[in-house]
Amino acid sequence: MQESQLNPDVLNVEPSALRKFDHEISADPKIVKLTLGEPDFNVPEHVKEAAIQAIKDDRSHYPYYWGIQELRDAASKYYGEKFGYHYSANQILCTVGATEGLAATFKTLFQPGDGVIIPSPAYPVYKAMAGVNHLKPIMINTKENGCILTASQIQQAIDDNADLKIKGLVLTDPSNPTGAVYSEQELADLVPVLKANHIWVISDEIYGELTYGVNHYTLSKWLPDQTIIINGLSKSHAMTGWRIGFVFGPTGIMDQIAKAHQFMVTTPTSIVQYASVEALTHGQHDAEGMRKIYEQRLAYLTTELDAIGVSYVKPKGAFYIFATIPAKCHQDSYAFARKLATDYHVGVIPGEPFGDSHAIRISYASSNDNLKAFVAALKAYLATFETVAG
Amino acid sequence: MQESQLNPDVLNVEPSALRKFDHEISADPKIVKLTLGEPDFNVPEHVKEAAIQAIKDDRSHYPYYWGIQELRDAASKYYGEKFGYHYSANQILCTVGATEGLAATFKTLFQPGDGVIIPSPAYPVYKAMAGVNHLKPIMINTKENGCILTASQIQQAIDDNADLKIKGLVLTDPSNPTGAVYSEQELADLVPVLKANHIWVISDEIYGELTYGVNHYTLSKWLPDQTIIINGLSKSHAMTGWRIGFVFGPTGIMDQIAKAHQFMVTTPTSIVQYASVEALTHGQHDAEGMRKIYEQRLAYLTTELDAIGVSYVKPKGAFYIFATIPAKCHQDSYAFARKLATDYHVGVIPGEPFGDSHAIRISYASSNDNLKAFVAALKAYLATFETVAG
Repeated sequence: MQESQLNPDVLNVEPSALRKFDHEISADPKIVKLTLGEPDFNVPEHVKEAAIQAIKDDRSHYPYYWGIQELRDAASKYYGEKFGYHYSANQILCTVGATEGLAATFKTLFQPGDGVIIPSPAYPVYKAMAGVNHLKPIMINTKENGCILTASQIQQAIDDNADLKIKGLVLTDPSNPTGAVYSEQELADLVPVLKANHIWVISDEIYGELTYGVNHYTLSKWLPDQTIIINGLSKSHAMTGWRIGFVFGPTGIMDQIAKAHQFMVTTPTSIVQYASVEALTHGQHDAEGMRKIYEQRLAYLTTELDAIGVSYVKPKGAFYIFATIPAKCHQDSYAFARKLATDYHVGVIPGEPFGDSHAIRISYASSNDNLKAFVAALKAYLATFETVAG
Repeated sequence: MQESQLNPDVLNVEPSALRKFDHEISADPKIVKLTLGEPDFNVPEHVKEAAIQAIKDDRSHYPYYWGIQELRDAASKYYGEKFGYHYSANQILCTVGATEGLAATFKTLFQPGDGVIIPSPAYPVYKAMAGVNHLKPIMINTKENGCILTASQIQQAIDDNADLKIKGLVLTDPSNPTGAVYSEQELADLVPVLKANHIWVISDEIYGELTYGVNHYTLSKWLPDQTIIINGLSKSHAMTGWRIGFVFGPTGIMDQIAKAHQFMVTTPTSIVQYASVEALTHGQHDAEGMRKIYEQRLAYLTTELDAIGVSYVKPKGAFYIFATIPAKCHQDSYAFARKLATDYHVGVIPGEPFGDSHAIRISYASSNDNLKAFVAALKAYLATFETVAG
């Protein structure tokens, strides 16, 4: 059988470059990793206890495909109180992490050939999902405006792509990889152009609880009929591997997304759903302890980077710094990150998959010792260029 | 925003009629259910213990997207010994149940417009997945041959659809809903026509451990280069709600299916993966106790149906009886099943979604008391027709 007969949309997509790079450098037993987008904390004890109880109670049967009622009720209350979401339980779908929420949403909202705006630097999975669904990703570089997309950029993209039906925009707020966070005004400013052009917004708010000195706002406040929110417990409750996410949106649309979801996975893991009820009912403050530690690490890293003279987008949320590779290195992001990994046993992610081959993504969801090791390695490596130049 | 702008392949697909019907009749607190396709047993204790240990050990981080190495190694050995599968760990993908394995496989193997043969009566999710992927399902009625597809039927379908590129066949063995099981010879007989026409086989073997008096064989023995096997622990280890499945296939193709999978779900739940290692390492005999009980229930039900004079496809596997609604009832499958539910508080699934509006699917993954209640209800209901006729 020929591979060429397979679906070209799958053939043409690259496997996640982030995970591939991380997997490659993990072969080094000495590697110190500031690579992956997951908390270095454990699932809160009370949530672990709830999962154990669900196992003991034999909660092992098929949950309803939207997710169990208790979890959707709990999500309605929790996110309403946290961020002012206005969604009843029947507008909330439980998914296999944010990824499956995104996949079901991409599949449902768009038709092959539609255009989707993705502000860049961007989490590369969005572009991959556009590819898998035979959509045309329209990447808009936002670096000149502090990684905040503007209404005029959206209008420009529409004007520049008159041959395309631009049907969607993916907004990541707070942003992976830059840590940029939209202010209330910056979101409100986007609304008229999105409304006028009937553009769906997939609002990925998975890092919503992790902001530093600013609040998280949701575009759904102004644009409820055109916004689909993706959220979940991976970052707020350090439950990445447990795989639980939520999709929030208008009723008629959610019925359709739920169907796409049903024929992808049936439903997320039952015992995780029961544990997640506990997380949303008694874990309102679980993220706060982690958030404080991330904030301290961010302060440490930015102080050190400032001292070394490495520039970066000023992060206000998530747990990444997107730093520019000093020009004197004359290296693209893969060369730079590979060298750091092989010679200094420190792993960061090349910026190229995010759309910037002159940057690296540093995750500070990593221990203080790891951050120190990274700073030392970075200093040592950059010093080699001074020598050469001198 | 208009729903009509959404993806028509999602709009046009119906939500699972099985689950919808089950959900509807579940509103009756007195309902006795022989409806869903899941064991009425609990997850084996040693597997539950392993899951609890994984929670305590904080196995909560992102597993590699193919699934953890230990699980793929264990699956290679387990299924090799059980059914003679010949797949190394790097040819095995861990999925969110069989459903996600099917979804990733459908997405990867086929291009929009391709034809896929589905022998009927069939599990309705296959047709839904064909629809979601914009494929043309070619339903072949197999009832005249004891629900076993023949090579000449495949050839006939090819001849009848000369305008279509028939790229796939979904084989469910043992069958849901009929319990039919292919013999070694019946599988071998299909090979030449499948080879000659380069038809991919998606071989759903999820009920492989549940056969009665016959062995389970795998088409991959004769057709390794064209077969993708779907399996998992939902039925063999009563782990439906835990959501763990496996896809087995040729290396180059598996690399592609793994990508489709990555952009659907990232990976199945970590703690379930660790528990599944235990299931496959020390749970080789877990299914046997359940299988014996299913076999006794099958004997009980067939004896009773024979006595009542209700005909059915003779089941050799799975845990369903697909029974014909007696002609004297003059009722289609929904009317018959609804009446049984509303007047007798007994739930079975209408045959219509499986492709036969004159049948019902009776699941004997239900307690002996439930089976007795069903038999009593069926007798009582059918007796009402005698009275009318008399």
